[in-house]
Amino acid sequence: MIYFDNSATTKPCEAVADVLSREIRSEDMWANPGSIHKIGVKCDKAYKDALTKTSALLGCKASEIVFTSCGTESTNTALRGYLAANKRAGKTVISTRTEHKATLETLALLESEGYKVVYIDVDRDGKPLLDQLENAVNEDTALLSFTHVNNETGSILPLPEITAIRDRKNPSAKIYLDCVQSLGKLQIDLSKMNVDMAGFSGHKIHSVKGVGVLYVRDGIRFAPLVRGGGQQEGRRSGTLSLLLADAFTAALEEAVSKREDAYKRVSEINSYLREELIKRNAVINSPEDALPFVLNVAFEGFQSETMLHCLEIYDIYVSTVSACSSKSKKVSYVLTEMGVRRELAANSCRLSFSRYNTMEEAKIFIEKLDEIYDLYLVKKR
Amino acid sequence: MIYFDNSATTKPCEAVADVLSREIRSEDMWANPGSIHKIGVKCDKAYKDALTKTSALLGCKASEIVFTSCGTESTNTALRGYLAANKRAGKTVISTRTEHKATLETLALLESEGYKVVYIDVDRDGKPLLDQLENAVNEDTALLSFTHVNNETGSILPLPEITAIRDRKNPSAKIYLDCVQSLGKLQIDLSKMNVDMAGFSGHKIHSVKGVGVLYVRDGIRFAPLVRGGGQQEGRRSGTLSLLLADAFTAALEEAVSKREDAYKRVSEINSYLREELIKRNAVINSPEDALPFVLNVAFEGFQSETMLHCLEIYDIYVSTVSACSSKSKKVSYVLTEMGVRRELAANSCRLSFSRYNTMEEAKIFIEKLDEIYDLYLVKKR
Repeated sequence: MIYFDNSATTKPCEAVADVLSREIRSEDMWANPGSIHKIGVKCDKAYKDALTKTSALLGCKASEIVFTSCGTESTNTALRGYLAANKRAGKTVISTRTEHKATLETLALLESEGYKVVYIDVDRDGKPLLDQLENAVNEDTALLSFTHVNNETGSILPLPEITAIRDRKNPSAKIYLDCVQSLGKLQIDLSKMNVDMAGFSGHKIHSVKGVGVLYVRDGIRFAPLVRGGGQQEGRRSGTLSLLLADAFTAALEEAVSKREDAYKRVSEINSYLREELIKRNAVINSPEDALPFVLNVAFEGFQSETMLHCLEIYDIYVSTVSACSSKSKKVSYVLTEMGVRRELAANSCRLSFSRYNTMEEAKIFIEKLDEIYDLYLVKKR
Repeated sequence: MIYFDNSATTKPCEAVADVLSREIRSEDMWANPGSIHKIGVKCDKAYKDALTKTSALLGCKASEIVFTSCGTESTNTALRGYLAANKRAGKTVISTRTEHKATLETLALLESEGYKVVYIDVDRDGKPLLDQLENAVNEDTALLSFTHVNNETGSILPLPEITAIRDRKNPSAKIYLDCVQSLGKLQIDLSKMNVDMAGFSGHKIHSVKGVGVLYVRDGIRFAPLVRGGGQQEGRRSGTLSLLLADAFTAALEEAVSKREDAYKRVSEINSYLREELIKRNAVINSPEDALPFVLNVAFEGFQSETMLHCLEIYDIYVSTVSACSSKSKKVSYVLTEMGVRRELAANSCRLSFSRYNTMEEAKIFIEKLDEIYDLYLVKKR
């Protein structure tokens, strides 16, 4: 199998499988961390260890981290929670139309509740227009919500420029950064990123589906999305899942320690594929300076879905639009917002890589692509 | 270890451990069910199988089930989601003060948003006063929220009487039933229970922490709590976790198939313990007709926490109040609402059983209790 769909989800790594298989049969590591008896206390201590490790790896304090059920919940909690708890912070939220659906759907809800959402246009490289942003941030701006790395194109946000505009135009405005696609790929050091909230997902870094993380800088109040027993300092109720916290932490430890090597190898794969694809008249939609883990490419003469199904015959997996949107069978809104022609967007596929992909796989991909071109494209002409 | 704290959480059963250990190392059962390639489709099919099995075991349709991250999320979603999507249904919610914190904290939020919450008193057995309920339900009643089995006392809700009052006084009012503690213990057949929404939790039925279920009867609209990619028909976004859905389903299958046997054995344990405890002048707080899986008992002369720690020396685990509230070190609000004297409530412990408990353990419990009485109580006198 050649799995080039790592932005949709990743295979759990061996470290995660080990933790899960061990813990699920443990004598007592399944107790409720909220219980005051000694096996409860033991689980609570283990949970705090996971929290401490995770926060250290992200460059923040343990008190700034909340475990959630997924990246989507992290985004929902950050945006709604911050605004609900800071009614005087302003009524305007600034974002783009190329965000993940978790953001866009939450923004739509906020609009229905009376907030003003200003969508900054993006350029051909998927980056928000900075002069438009400069004009948009004002004293009514409560929150800015951006994505660190776009999941469809790999576009990297010009974060320092954006935080500088915020600092200059309205230092009280907060920034939420969706780091679901950047975690384990770009360096994440929250102590230096100058953002106020950030969201992360386990299953994009070779952990399991069902766990995410929300970072909220100390001192920032937010209203919880899930209320109840007051777990996680009341910021996210529901019985703590040591199993999922450990599954996240184990994956993050590996992702961070292997990040630089992975980046180097994936860059080589990406460069090779770009070169070979261009030779074959494919059009690269990802910007030149995109994260190498994502390569968005249009295959002329092939509808996205056709190419996807051609490739899967060879046990090669890519995606059309993001997995979250793929069932709606629409053309990528991310690409059309970037100004990619509709016809080209309809021919686009996303190849997305992980540290487990190899140059060997990239070569087989090109080989099989040539077979597909020979079989289908030549016939049609 | 004698674990009598199964209402706080349960040990994952072998069937769940098997499913998890197998799936976490599977070649392809980790794909994103939202992906349209064949391994995505395969995972989506498996997910739908879990949905179908779970719904069949609960006596409802697959379309009526949403997987959530926990019972608390299910409760939050049902209460807030129903009211948000049905603004004309009324402005009053009816409940009791003995609900789980997930309900009480959500009701507090709803009150702050302008809803009127009417709290029905409970009697000495923890059951809502039916005449008070009869008077409270009116045309402004949008929603009734009750717990099937109280987690601290095992009190069973007089559900047929409650649904009858709703049907008589305002048939449009909806009922949310918190079934977290009744699942796998009482028969749950949603096709016959005459409720509109219900919440369930995996980790109370020997699955893992991090998965729950929300039942919403077909035709009832509700606003999602977690928005985004539109998974689960838009009712709960976030990448589907086949692993957690399968972990829930495996546990539920076992819980249902072993329910009657477990009920019988636990009833015997409960009867034996009641008898022996009464002989020792302990006061039983659980009503006579409580679910046998929960036995709330006050040990005169012992603060709840003291008894808990005395027992844990013998590797016997019980709880004071519910695990969700235990860290606040307060006296149980459930018991005080039932009219249990504060001093007695301060001496109360909860023993809660599962199908894995044995009569042998109950006998050891009494033996060790006698040792504790001998060691500590006699000295004090």
